[in-house]
Amino acid sequence: MFVTETSVRVRYSETDKMGFVYHGVYPQYYEIGREEALRYLGVSYKMLEDSGIIMPVITMSLKYIKPVMYDDVLIVRTTVKEMPNVRMKFFYEIFKGDELIHTGQNALVFLDDKTRKPVRVPEWFAKLFEKFFEE
Amino acid sequence: MFVTETSVRVRYSETDKMGFVYHGVYPQYYEIGREEALRYLGVSYKMLEDSGIIMPVITMSLKYIKPVMYDDVLIVRTTVKEMPNVRMKFFYEIFKGDELIHTGQNALVFLDDKTRKPVRVPEWFAKLFEKFFEE
Amino acid sequence: MFVTETSVRVRYSETDKMGFVYHGVYPQYYEIGREEALRYLGVSYKMLEDSGIIMPVITMSLKYIKPVMYDDVLIVRTTVKEMPNVRMKFFYEIFKGDELIHTGQNALVFLDDKTRKPVRVPEWFAKLFEKFFEE
Amino acid sequence: MFVTETSVRVRYSETDKMGFVYHGVYPQYYEIGREEALRYLGVSYKMLEDSGIIMPVITMSLKYIKPVMYDDVLIVRTTVKEMPNVRMKFFYEIFKGDELIHTGQNALVFLDDKTRKPVRVPEWFAKLFEKFFEE
Repeated sequence: MFVTETSVRVRYSETDKMGFVYHGVYPQYYEIGREEALRYLGVSYKMLEDSGIIMPVITMSLKYIKPVMYDDVLIVRTTVKEMPNVRMKFFYEIFKGDELIHTGQNALVFLDDKTRKPVRVPEWFAKLFEKFFEE
Repeated sequence: MFVTETSVRVRYSETDKMGFVYHGVYPQYYEIGREEALRYLGVSYKMLEDSGIIMPVITMSLKYIKPVMYDDVLIVRTTVKEMPNVRMKFFYEIFKGDELIHTGQNALVFLDDKTRKPVRVPEWFAKLFEKFFEE
Repeated sequence: MFVTETSVRVRYSETDKMGFVYHGVYPQYYEIGREEALRYLGVSYKMLEDSGIIMPVITMSLKYIKPVMYDDVLIVRTTVKEMPNVRMKFFYEIFKGDELIHTGQNALVFLDDKTRKPVRVPEWFAKLFEKFFEE
Repeated sequence: MFVTETSVRVRYSETDKMGFVYHGVYPQYYEIGREEALRYLGVSYKMLEDSGIIMPVITMSLKYIKPVMYDDVLIVRTTVKEMPNVRMKFFYEIFKGDELIHTGQNALVFLDDKTRKPVRVPEWFAKLFEKFFEE
Protein backbone atom coordinates (compact mmCIF):
# COMPACT_ATOMS: atom_id res chain seq x y z
CA MET A 1 0.00 0.00 0.00
CA PHE A 2 1.22 3.47 -0.84
CA VAL A 3 -0.14 6.42 1.13
CA THR A 4 0.71 10.12 0.89
CA GLU A 5 -0.82 13.28 2.25
CA THR A 6 -0.91 16.80 0.94
CA SER A 7 -2.80 19.94 1.87
CA VAL A 8 -4.94 22.32 -0.13
CA ARG A 9 -6.59 25.59 0.85
CA VAL A 10 -10.16 26.15 -0.39
CA ARG A 11 -10.42 28.99 -2.94
CA TYR A 12 -13.22 31.53 -3.00
CA SER A 13 -13.98 30.54 -6.58
CA GLU A 14 -14.63 26.99 -5.37
CA THR A 15 -17.58 27.96 -3.18
CA ASP A 16 -21.14 28.26 -4.41
CA LYS A 17 -24.15 30.20 -3.18
CA MET A 18 -24.80 27.61 -0.43
CA GLY A 19 -21.56 28.82 1.11
CA PHE A 20 -20.04 25.35 0.78
CA VAL A 21 -17.43 24.17 -1.67
CA TYR A 22 -19.24 23.26 -4.90
CA HIS A 23 -19.56 19.47 -5.03
CA GLY A 24 -18.00 19.35 -8.50
CA VAL A 25 -14.71 20.78 -7.21
CA TYR A 26 -13.58 17.69 -5.27
CA PRO A 27 -12.16 15.92 -8.36
CA GLN A 28 -9.63 18.78 -8.45
CA TYR A 29 -8.59 17.96 -4.88
CA TYR A 30 -8.22 14.30 -5.89
CA GLU A 31 -6.01 15.43 -8.75
CA ILE A 32 -3.79 17.40 -6.39
CA GLY A 33 -3.61 14.28 -4.20
CA ARG A 34 -2.51 12.14 -7.15
CA GLU A 35 0.04 14.68 -8.34
CA GLU A 36 1.65 15.00 -4.95
CA ALA A 37 1.69 11.21 -4.56
CA LEU A 38 3.75 11.01 -7.77
CA ARG A 39 5.98 13.88 -6.75
CA TYR A 40 6.70 12.02 -3.51
CA LEU A 41 8.08 9.22 -5.72
CA GLY A 42 10.34 11.65 -7.54
CA VAL A 43 8.32 11.90 -10.72
CA SER A 44 5.33 13.93 -11.87
CA TYR A 45 2.20 13.37 -13.86
CA LYS A 46 3.61 15.91 -16.29
CA MET A 47 6.60 13.61 -16.90
CA LEU A 48 4.17 10.86 -17.78
CA GLU A 49 2.37 13.08 -20.28
CA ASP A 50 5.67 14.31 -21.69
CA SER A 51 6.57 10.65 -22.31
CA GLY A 52 3.47 10.26 -24.48
CA ILE A 53 1.02 8.71 -22.00
CA ILE A 54 -2.21 10.30 -20.80
CA MET A 55 -4.37 9.01 -17.96
CA PRO A 56 -8.06 9.80 -18.32
CA VAL A 57 -10.44 9.00 -15.46
CA ILE A 58 -12.93 6.23 -16.34
CA THR A 59 -14.91 5.84 -13.11
CA MET A 60 -15.22 7.99 -10.01
CA SER A 61 -17.32 7.97 -6.86
CA LEU A 62 -17.60 10.57 -4.15
CA LYS A 63 -19.10 10.68 -0.67
CA TYR A 64 -19.70 14.06 0.95
CA ILE A 65 -19.70 13.63 4.73
CA LYS A 66 -19.42 17.21 5.97
CA PRO A 67 -19.42 20.45 4.01
CA VAL A 68 -16.21 22.36 3.41
CA MET A 69 -15.97 26.13 3.62
CA TYR A 70 -13.98 28.94 2.06
CA ASP A 71 -10.41 29.24 3.38
CA ASP A 72 -10.52 25.81 5.05
CA VAL A 73 -7.22 23.97 4.89
CA LEU A 74 -7.83 20.36 3.90
CA ILE A 75 -5.58 17.32 4.12
CA VAL A 76 -5.94 15.02 1.13
CA ARG A 77 -4.77 11.47 1.89
CA THR A 78 -4.23 9.49 -1.30
CA THR A 79 -3.90 5.71 -1.23
CA VAL A 80 -2.87 3.21 -3.89
CA LYS A 81 -3.89 -0.31 -2.79
CA GLU A 82 -2.66 -2.37 -5.73
CA MET A 83 -0.02 -2.25 -8.42
CA PRO A 84 -1.03 -0.25 -11.50
CA ASN A 85 -1.64 -2.44 -14.53
CA VAL A 86 -4.00 -1.51 -17.36
CA ARG A 87 -5.86 0.55 -14.78
CA MET A 88 -4.79 2.44 -11.73
CA LYS A 89 -7.06 3.03 -8.76
CA PHE A 90 -6.73 5.80 -6.22
CA PHE A 91 -8.58 6.22 -2.93
CA TYR A 92 -8.98 9.60 -1.26
CA GLU A 93 -9.78 10.65 2.28
CA ILE A 94 -10.13 14.35 2.93
CA PHE A 95 -9.71 15.68 6.45
CA LYS A 96 -10.37 19.01 8.06
CA GLY A 97 -8.20 18.90 11.14
CA ASP A 98 -8.75 15.39 12.52
CA GLU A 99 -12.20 15.04 11.07
CA LEU A 100 -12.83 12.94 7.96
CA ILE A 101 -15.15 15.07 5.85
CA HIS A 102 -15.06 13.38 2.45
CA THR A 103 -14.06 10.10 0.79
CA GLY A 104 -13.80 9.10 -2.82
CA GLN A 105 -12.08 6.91 -5.36
CA ASN A 106 -11.41 6.84 -9.04
CA ALA A 107 -9.87 4.62 -11.69
CA LEU A 108 -7.71 5.83 -14.55
CA VAL A 109 -6.42 4.12 -17.67
CA PHE A 110 -3.18 4.57 -19.56
CA LEU A 111 -3.61 5.80 -23.14
CA ASP A 112 -1.07 6.47 -25.84
CA ASP A 113 -1.42 10.22 -26.40
CA LYS A 114 -1.07 9.90 -30.19
CA THR A 115 -3.27 6.90 -30.94
CA ARG A 116 -5.58 7.45 -27.96
CA LYS A 117 -5.56 3.65 -27.53
CA PRO A 118 -5.17 1.87 -24.16
CA VAL A 119 -1.69 0.69 -23.27
CA ARG A 120 -0.21 -1.15 -20.31
CA VAL A 121 1.35 0.92 -17.55
CA PRO A 122 4.87 2.02 -18.61
CA GLU A 123 7.48 -0.16 -16.93
CA TRP A 124 9.45 2.72 -15.38
CA PHE A 125 6.20 4.01 -13.90
CA ALA A 126 5.10 0.64 -12.48
CA LYS A 127 8.57 0.16 -10.93
CA LEU A 128 8.04 3.22 -8.73
CA PHE A 129 5.28 1.40 -6.87
CA GLU A 130 6.90 -2.04 -6.56
CA LYS A 131 8.46 -1.56 -3.16
CA PHE A 132 5.10 -0.69 -1.63
CA PHE A 133 3.56 -3.98 -2.74
CA GLU A 134 6.28 -6.51 -1.94
CA GLU A 135 5.66 -8.96 0.84
CA MET B 1 -40.54 6.93 -13.25
CA PHE B 2 -39.90 10.47 -14.39
CA VAL B 3 -37.60 11.07 -17.36
CA THR B 4 -36.63 14.31 -19.08
CA GLU B 5 -34.00 15.27 -21.61
CA THR B 6 -32.14 18.49 -22.20
CA SER B 7 -29.16 19.48 -24.30
CA VAL B 8 -25.94 21.26 -23.47
CA ARG B 9 -23.11 22.43 -25.71
CA VAL B 10 -19.56 21.83 -24.46
CA ARG B 11 -17.70 25.06 -23.62
CA TYR B 12 -14.06 25.69 -24.47
CA SER B 13 -13.39 26.36 -20.79
CA GLU B 14 -14.60 22.84 -19.99
CA THR B 15 -11.85 21.13 -21.97
CA ASP B 16 -8.42 20.31 -20.59
CA LYS B 17 -5.05 19.76 -22.23
CA MET B 18 -6.02 16.21 -23.24
CA GLY B 19 -8.51 17.84 -25.58
CA PHE B 20 -11.41 16.11 -23.78
CA VAL B 21 -13.93 17.65 -21.43
CA TYR B 22 -12.33 17.73 -17.97
CA HIS B 23 -13.77 14.86 -15.94
CA GLY B 24 -14.74 17.19 -13.10
CA VAL B 25 -17.13 19.11 -15.35
CA TYR B 26 -19.80 16.40 -15.65
CA PRO B 27 -21.46 17.26 -12.30
CA GLN B 28 -22.36 20.58 -13.97
CA TYR B 29 -24.11 18.69 -16.76
CA TYR B 30 -25.99 16.65 -14.16
CA GLU B 31 -27.03 19.91 -12.53
CA ILE B 32 -28.38 21.23 -15.82
CA GLY B 33 -30.26 17.93 -16.19
CA ARG B 34 -31.84 18.29 -12.73
CA GLU B 35 -32.75 21.92 -13.30
CA GLU B 36 -34.45 21.24 -16.60
CA ALA B 37 -36.29 18.26 -15.06
CA LEU B 38 -37.77 20.63 -12.47
CA ARG B 39 -38.54 23.28 -15.06
CA TYR B 40 -40.46 20.64 -17.01
CA LEU B 41 -42.66 20.29 -13.93
CA GLY B 42 -43.30 24.03 -13.86
CA VAL B 43 -41.00 24.85 -10.97
CA SER B 44 -37.29 25.54 -10.58
CA TYR B 45 -34.52 24.67 -8.19
CA LYS B 46 -34.29 28.39 -7.54
CA MET B 47 -37.89 28.38 -6.26
CA LEU B 48 -36.91 25.65 -3.83
CA GLU B 49 -33.97 27.70 -2.55
CA ASP B 50 -36.13 30.81 -2.36
CA SER B 51 -38.52 28.83 -0.15
CA GLY B 52 -35.69 28.18 2.31
CA ILE B 53 -34.58 24.70 1.26
CA ILE B 54 -31.16 23.80 -0.14
CA MET B 55 -30.22 20.45 -1.67
CA PRO B 56 -26.58 19.51 -1.25
CA VAL B 57 -25.23 16.42 -3.00
CA ILE B 58 -24.18 13.67 -0.58
CA THR B 59 -23.05 10.88 -2.91
CA MET B 60 -22.19 10.80 -6.58
CA SER B 61 -20.77 8.28 -9.01
CA LEU B 62 -19.67 8.74 -12.58
CA LYS B 63 -18.77 6.43 -15.44
CA TYR B 64 -16.89 7.85 -18.42
CA ILE B 65 -17.59 5.67 -21.46
CA LYS B 66 -16.34 7.83 -24.33
CA PRO B 67 -14.59 11.20 -24.24
CA VAL B 68 -16.47 14.37 -25.07
CA MET B 69 -14.98 17.18 -27.13
CA TYR B 70 -15.25 20.94 -27.44
CA ASP B 71 -18.42 22.15 -29.18
CA ASP B 72 -20.11 18.73 -28.94
CA VAL B 73 -23.83 18.96 -28.30
CA LEU B 74 -24.82 16.49 -25.60
CA ILE B 75 -28.21 15.18 -24.59
CA VAL B 76 -28.56 14.77 -20.83
CA ARG B 77 -31.32 12.31 -19.90
CA THR B 78 -32.29 12.65 -16.24
CA THR B 79 -34.33 9.99 -14.49
CA VAL B 80 -36.02 9.90 -11.09
CA LYS B 81 -36.89 6.30 -10.18
CA GLU B 82 -38.54 6.78 -6.81
CA MET B 83 -40.46 9.42 -4.89
CA PRO B 84 -38.25 11.95 -3.09
CA ASN B 85 -38.32 11.54 0.67
CA VAL B 86 -35.45 12.55 2.96
CA ARG B 87 -33.20 11.95 -0.02
CA MET B 88 -33.68 12.33 -3.72
CA LYS B 89 -31.79 10.25 -6.26
CA PHE B 90 -31.13 11.20 -9.86
CA PHE B 91 -29.75 9.05 -12.67
CA TYR B 92 -28.08 10.54 -15.71
CA GLU B 93 -27.35 9.21 -19.17
CA ILE B 94 -25.43 11.47 -21.50
CA PHE B 95 -25.64 10.91 -25.25
CA LYS B 96 -23.75 12.28 -28.21
CA GLY B 97 -26.10 11.67 -31.09
CA ASP B 98 -27.40 8.16 -30.46
CA GLU B 99 -24.35 7.03 -28.58
CA LEU B 100 -24.34 6.72 -24.80
CA ILE B 101 -21.06 8.27 -23.73
CA HIS B 102 -21.47 8.74 -19.97
CA THR B 103 -23.64 7.58 -17.08
CA GLY B 104 -23.87 8.74 -13.50
CA GLN B 105 -26.05 9.15 -10.46
CA ASN B 106 -26.20 11.21 -7.35
CA ALA B 107 -28.22 11.59 -4.17
CA LEU B 108 -29.19 14.89 -2.59
CA VAL B 109 -30.71 15.75 0.77
CA PHE B 110 -33.10 18.51 1.74
CA LEU B 111 -31.68 20.98 4.28
CA ASP B 112 -33.25 23.97 5.94
CA ASP B 113 -31.16 26.85 4.62
CA LYS B 114 -31.13 28.64 8.00
CA THR B 115 -30.46 25.78 10.41
CA ARG B 116 -28.58 23.66 7.86
CA LYS B 117 -30.39 20.65 9.37
CA PRO B 118 -31.98 17.87 7.28
CA VAL B 119 -35.71 18.16 6.66
CA ARG B 120 -38.22 16.00 4.80
CA VAL B 121 -39.01 16.89 1.23
CA PRO B 122 -41.46 19.83 1.13
CA GLU B 123 -44.99 18.59 0.42
CA TRP B 124 -45.58 20.86 -2.59
CA PHE B 125 -42.36 19.59 -4.07
CA ALA B 126 -43.11 15.91 -3.50
CA LYS B 127 -46.57 16.37 -5.04
CA LEU B 128 -44.99 17.31 -8.36
CA PHE B 129 -43.65 13.78 -8.71
CA GLU B 130 -46.68 11.83 -7.49
CA LYS B 131 -48.29 11.22 -10.84
CA PHE B 132 -45.12 9.58 -12.14
CA PHE B 133 -45.15 6.98 -9.37
CA GLU B 134 -48.81 5.98 -9.16
CA GLU B 135 -49.75 2.51 -10.20
CA MET C 1 -19.98 46.75 -37.49
CA PHE C 2 -21.12 43.23 -36.76
CA VAL C 3 -23.45 42.65 -33.81
CA THR C 4 -25.07 39.44 -32.58
CA GLU C 5 -26.91 38.43 -29.45
CA THR C 6 -27.21 35.14 -27.63
CA SER C 7 -28.55 34.07 -24.26
CA VAL C 8 -27.03 32.09 -21.43
CA ARG C 9 -28.56 30.85 -18.18
CA VAL C 10 -26.42 31.20 -15.03
CA ARG C 11 -25.32 27.84 -13.59
CA TYR C 12 -25.28 27.04 -9.89
CA SER C 13 -21.60 26.16 -10.19
CA GLU C 14 -20.93 29.71 -11.41
CA THR C 15 -22.06 31.35 -8.17
CA ASP C 16 -19.83 31.91 -5.18
CA LYS C 17 -20.53 32.35 -1.49
CA MET C 18 -21.54 35.99 -2.01
CA GLY C 19 -24.53 34.60 -3.90
CA PHE C 20 -23.42 36.39 -7.07
CA VAL C 21 -21.85 34.90 -10.17
CA TYR C 22 -18.12 34.59 -9.50
CA HIS C 23 -16.36 37.45 -11.27
CA GLY C 24 -13.98 35.05 -13.02
CA VAL C 25 -16.87 33.37 -14.88
CA TYR C 26 -17.66 36.25 -17.25
CA PRO C 27 -14.89 35.32 -19.73
CA GLN C 28 -16.92 32.14 -20.34
CA TYR C 29 -19.95 34.26 -21.25
CA TYR C 30 -17.77 36.28 -23.63
CA GLU C 31 -16.66 33.02 -25.19
CA ILE C 32 -20.24 31.93 -25.73
CA GLY C 33 -20.88 35.34 -27.30
CA ARG C 34 -17.95 34.91 -29.70
CA GLU C 35 -18.94 31.36 -30.61
CA GLU C 36 -22.51 32.30 -31.40
CA ALA C 37 -21.31 35.29 -33.43
CA LEU C 38 -19.31 32.90 -35.62
CA ARG C 39 -22.15 30.42 -35.84
CA TYR C 40 -24.37 33.24 -37.09
CA LEU C 41 -21.91 33.58 -39.97
CA GLY C 42 -22.21 29.89 -40.77
CA VAL C 43 -18.90 28.80 -39.31
CA SER C 44 -17.65 27.89 -35.86
CA TYR C 45 -14.59 28.51 -33.74
CA LYS C 46 -14.10 24.75 -33.84
CA MET C 47 -13.77 24.92 -37.65
CA LEU C 48 -11.03 27.47 -37.20
CA GLU C 49 -9.17 25.20 -34.78
CA ASP C 50 -9.70 22.21 -37.04
CA SER C 51 -8.05 24.23 -39.83
CA GLY C 52 -4.93 24.60 -37.68
CA ILE C 53 -5.46 28.07 -36.19
CA ILE C 54 -5.91 28.84 -32.49
CA MET C 55 -6.98 32.18 -31.05
CA PRO C 56 -5.62 32.90 -27.59
CA VAL C 57 -6.80 35.97 -25.70
CA ILE C 58 -4.04 38.56 -25.18
CA THR C 59 -5.85 41.38 -23.37
CA MET C 60 -9.18 41.57 -21.61
CA SER C 61 -11.03 44.11 -19.51
CA LEU C 62 -14.24 43.74 -17.57
CA LYS C 63 -16.64 46.12 -15.87
CA TYR C 64 -19.14 44.73 -13.37
CA ILE C 65 -22.12 47.08 -13.17
CA LYS C 66 -24.71 44.97 -11.35
CA PRO C 67 -24.37 41.52 -9.82
CA VAL C 68 -25.83 38.49 -11.57
CA MET C 69 -27.61 35.70 -9.71
CA TYR C 70 -28.17 31.98 -10.07
CA ASP C 71 -30.71 31.03 -12.76
CA ASP C 72 -30.71 34.52 -14.30
CA VAL C 73 -31.05 34.47 -18.07
CA LEU C 74 -28.54 36.88 -19.60
CA ILE C 75 -28.33 38.33 -23.08
CA VAL C 76 -24.77 38.60 -24.36
CA ARG C 77 -24.43 41.16 -27.16
CA THR C 78 -21.14 40.71 -29.03
CA THR C 79 -19.81 43.42 -31.31
CA VAL C 80 -16.95 43.44 -33.82
CA LYS C 81 -16.06 47.03 -34.72
CA GLU C 82 -13.25 46.51 -37.19
CA MET C 83 -12.03 43.90 -39.65
CA PRO C 84 -9.87 41.17 -38.07
CA ASN C 85 -6.23 41.43 -39.08
CA VAL C 86 -3.37 40.17 -36.92
CA ARG C 87 -5.66 40.77 -33.96
CA MET C 88 -9.37 40.57 -33.51
CA LYS C 89 -11.24 42.65 -30.95
CA PHE C 90 -14.62 41.81 -29.45
CA PHE C 91 -16.86 44.02 -27.31
CA TYR C 92 -19.46 42.56 -24.97
CA GLU C 93 -22.55 44.00 -23.35
CA ILE C 94 -24.45 41.74 -21.01
CA PHE C 95 -28.09 42.48 -20.24
CA LYS C 96 -30.55 41.13 -17.73
CA GLY C 97 -33.89 42.01 -19.28
CA ASP C 98 -33.41 45.56 -20.53
CA GLU C 99 -30.78 46.42 -17.98
CA LEU C 100 -27.10 46.57 -18.92
CA ILE C 101 -25.32 44.79 -16.09
CA HIS C 102 -21.83 44.18 -17.46
CA THR C 103 -19.50 45.32 -20.23
CA GLY C 104 -16.16 44.01 -21.39
CA GLN C 105 -13.81 43.60 -24.28
CA ASN C 106 -10.94 41.42 -25.31
CA ALA C 107 -8.41 41.01 -28.09
CA LEU C 108 -7.31 37.72 -29.56
CA VAL C 109 -4.49 36.80 -31.93
CA PHE C 110 -4.29 34.13 -34.60
CA LEU C 111 -1.63 31.47 -33.97
CA ASP C 112 -0.58 28.52 -36.06
CA ASP C 113 -1.49 25.58 -33.83
CA LYS C 114 1.68 23.63 -34.71
CA THR C 115 4.34 26.35 -34.57
CA ARG C 116 2.47 28.47 -32.00
CA LYS C 117 3.64 31.51 -34.00
CA PRO C 118 1.39 34.48 -34.89
CA VAL C 119 -0.18 34.43 -38.33
CA ARG C 120 -2.46 36.79 -40.24
CA VAL C 121 -6.16 36.10 -40.12
CA PRO C 122 -7.03 33.31 -42.60
CA GLU C 123 -8.53 34.76 -45.75
CA TRP C 124 -11.70 32.67 -45.68
CA PHE C 125 -12.27 33.83 -42.12
CA ALA C 126 -11.69 37.53 -42.85
CA LYS C 127 -14.06 37.30 -45.82
CA LEU C 128 -16.95 36.44 -43.49
CA PHE C 129 -16.74 39.89 -41.95
CA GLU C 130 -16.21 41.95 -45.11
CA LYS C 131 -19.82 42.81 -45.78
CA PHE C 132 -20.19 44.32 -42.33
CA PHE C 133 -17.38 46.78 -42.94
CA GLU C 134 -18.01 47.98 -46.48
CA GLU C 135 -19.07 51.56 -47.01
CA MET D 1 3.35 50.80 -1.37
CA PHE D 2 2.64 47.31 -0.13
CA VAL D 3 4.03 44.35 -2.07
CA THR D 4 3.81 40.63 -1.34
CA GLU D 5 4.56 37.51 -3.30
CA THR D 6 3.08 34.05 -3.21
CA SER D 7 3.32 30.99 -5.41
CA VAL D 8 0.72 28.81 -7.06
CA ARG D 9 1.07 25.61 -9.07
CA VAL D 10 -1.06 25.29 -12.22
CA ARG D 11 -3.74 22.61 -11.95
CA TYR D 12 -4.64 20.21 -14.75
CA SER D 13 -8.23 21.41 -14.54
CA GLU D 14 -7.04 24.93 -15.32
CA THR D 15 -5.71 24.04 -18.76
CA ASP D 16 -7.80 23.99 -21.90
CA LYS D 17 -7.46 22.19 -25.23
CA MET D 18 -4.83 24.68 -26.43
CA GLY D 19 -2.62 23.21 -23.74
CA PHE D 20 -2.35 26.61 -22.04
CA VAL D 21 -4.00 27.75 -18.83
CA TYR D 22 -7.51 28.90 -19.74
CA HIS D 23 -7.52 32.70 -19.84
CA GLY D 24 -10.48 32.88 -17.44
CA VAL D 25 -8.48 31.21 -14.67
CA TYR D 26 -6.15 34.15 -13.92
CA PRO D 27 -8.68 35.96 -11.70
CA GLN D 28 -8.29 32.97 -9.35
CA TYR D 29 -4.54 33.58 -9.22
CA TYR D 30 -5.20 37.25 -8.45
CA GLU D 31 -7.49 36.12 -5.63
CA ILE D 32 -4.76 33.93 -4.17
CA GLY D 33 -2.42 36.93 -4.41
CA ARG D 34 -4.89 39.14 -2.50
CA GLU D 35 -5.54 36.51 0.14
CA GLU D 36 -1.87 35.95 0.82
CA ALA D 37 -1.27 39.71 0.95
CA LEU D 38 -3.85 39.95 3.73
CA ARG D 39 -2.48 36.90 5.53
CA TYR D 40 0.94 38.58 5.50
CA LEU D 41 -0.69 41.39 7.50
CA GLY D 42 -2.02 38.91 10.04
CA VAL D 43 -5.61 38.91 8.89
CA SER D 44 -7.59 37.11 6.19
CA TYR D 45 -10.27 37.94 3.69
CA LYS D 46 -12.41 35.42 5.55
CA MET D 47 -12.12 37.58 8.71
CA LEU D 48 -13.42 40.50 6.70
CA GLU D 49 -16.41 38.49 5.49
CA ASP D 50 -17.02 37.14 8.99
CA SER D 51 -17.19 40.75 10.17
CA GLY D 52 -20.04 41.41 7.73
CA ILE D 53 -18.17 42.99 4.82
CA ILE D 54 -17.91 41.53 1.32
CA MET D 55 -15.62 42.82 -1.44
CA PRO D 56 -16.94 42.27 -4.95
CA VAL D 57 -14.73 43.08 -7.93
CA ILE D 58 -16.04 46.01 -10.01
CA THR D 59 -13.39 46.38 -12.70
CA MET D 60 -10.61 44.12 -13.89
CA SER D 61 -8.09 44.13 -16.71
CA LEU D 62 -5.68 41.43 -17.77
CA LYS D 63 -2.70 41.25 -20.10
CA TYR D 64 -1.47 37.84 -21.25
CA ILE D 65 2.22 38.12 -22.19
CA LYS D 66 3.28 34.48 -22.40
CA PRO D 67 1.22 31.32 -22.05
CA VAL D 68 1.33 29.26 -18.87
CA MET D 69 1.37 25.47 -18.86
CA TYR D 70 0.21 22.63 -16.66
CA ASP D 71 2.35 22.08 -13.55
CA ASP D 72 4.14 25.42 -13.93
CA VAL D 73 4.90 27.09 -10.63
CA LEU D 74 4.01 30.76 -10.81
CA ILE D 75 4.95 33.65 -8.55
CA VAL D 76 2.10 36.11 -8.04
CA ARG D 77 3.33 39.54 -6.94
CA THR D 78 0.50 41.63 -5.53
CA THR D 79 0.86 45.37 -5.06
CA VAL D 80 -1.32 47.93 -3.29
CA LYS D 81 -0.33 51.43 -4.39
CA GLU D 82 -2.74 53.55 -2.38
CA MET D 83 -4.69 53.40 0.87
CA PRO D 84 -8.04 51.58 0.57
CA ASN D 85 -10.99 53.94 0.85
CA VAL D 86 -14.37 53.27 -0.76
CA ARG D 87 -12.45 51.21 -3.31
CA MET D 88 -9.35 49.13 -3.12
CA LYS D 89 -7.08 48.56 -6.10
CA PHE D 90 -4.70 45.66 -6.55
CA PHE D 91 -1.99 45.22 -9.20
CA TYR D 92 -0.66 41.79 -10.14
CA GLU D 93 2.49 40.64 -11.85
CA ILE D 94 2.83 36.94 -12.51
CA PHE D 95 6.26 35.43 -13.07
CA LYS D 96 7.48 32.07 -14.25
CA GLY D 97 11.00 31.94 -12.93
CA ASP D 98 12.39 35.41 -13.64
CA GLU D 99 10.14 36.02 -16.59
CA LEU D 100 7.10 38.26 -16.33
CA ILE D 101 4.35 36.37 -18.13
CA HIS D 102 1.17 38.21 -17.12
CA THR D 103 0.02 41.49 -15.59
CA GLY D 104 -3.36 42.62 -14.37
CA GLN D 105 -5.25 44.81 -11.97
CA ASN D 106 -8.65 45.01 -10.39
CA ALA D 107 -10.70 47.24 -8.14
CA LEU D 108 -12.98 46.02 -5.38
CA VAL D 109 -15.58 47.79 -3.27
CA PHE D 110 -16.62 47.23 0.32
CA LEU D 111 -20.27 46.19 0.73
CA ASP D 112 -22.29 45.50 3.85
CA ASP D 113 -23.11 41.81 3.49
CA LYS D 114 -26.69 42.27 4.80
CA THR D 115 -27.78 45.43 2.98
CA ARG D 116 -25.50 44.87 -0.02
CA LYS D 117 -24.88 48.64 0.04
CA PRO D 118 -21.43 50.24 -0.34
CA VAL D 119 -19.61 51.18 2.87
CA ARG D 120 -16.28 52.81 3.61
CA VAL D 121 -13.34 50.54 4.34
CA PRO D 122 -13.55 49.29 7.95
CA GLU D 123 -11.15 51.26 10.16
CA TRP D 124 -9.33 48.21 11.54
CA PHE D 125 -8.77 47.06 7.99
CA ALA D 126 -7.49 50.39 6.69
CA LYS D 127 -5.11 50.61 9.68
CA LEU D 128 -3.28 47.51 8.49
CA PHE D 129 -2.07 49.41 5.43
CA GLU D 130 -1.18 52.73 7.06
CA LYS D 131 2.45 52.03 7.70
CA PHE D 132 3.04 51.29 4.03
CA PHE D 133 1.77 54.69 2.97
CA GLU D 134 3.36 57.04 5.49
CA GLU D 135 6.01 59.41 4.29
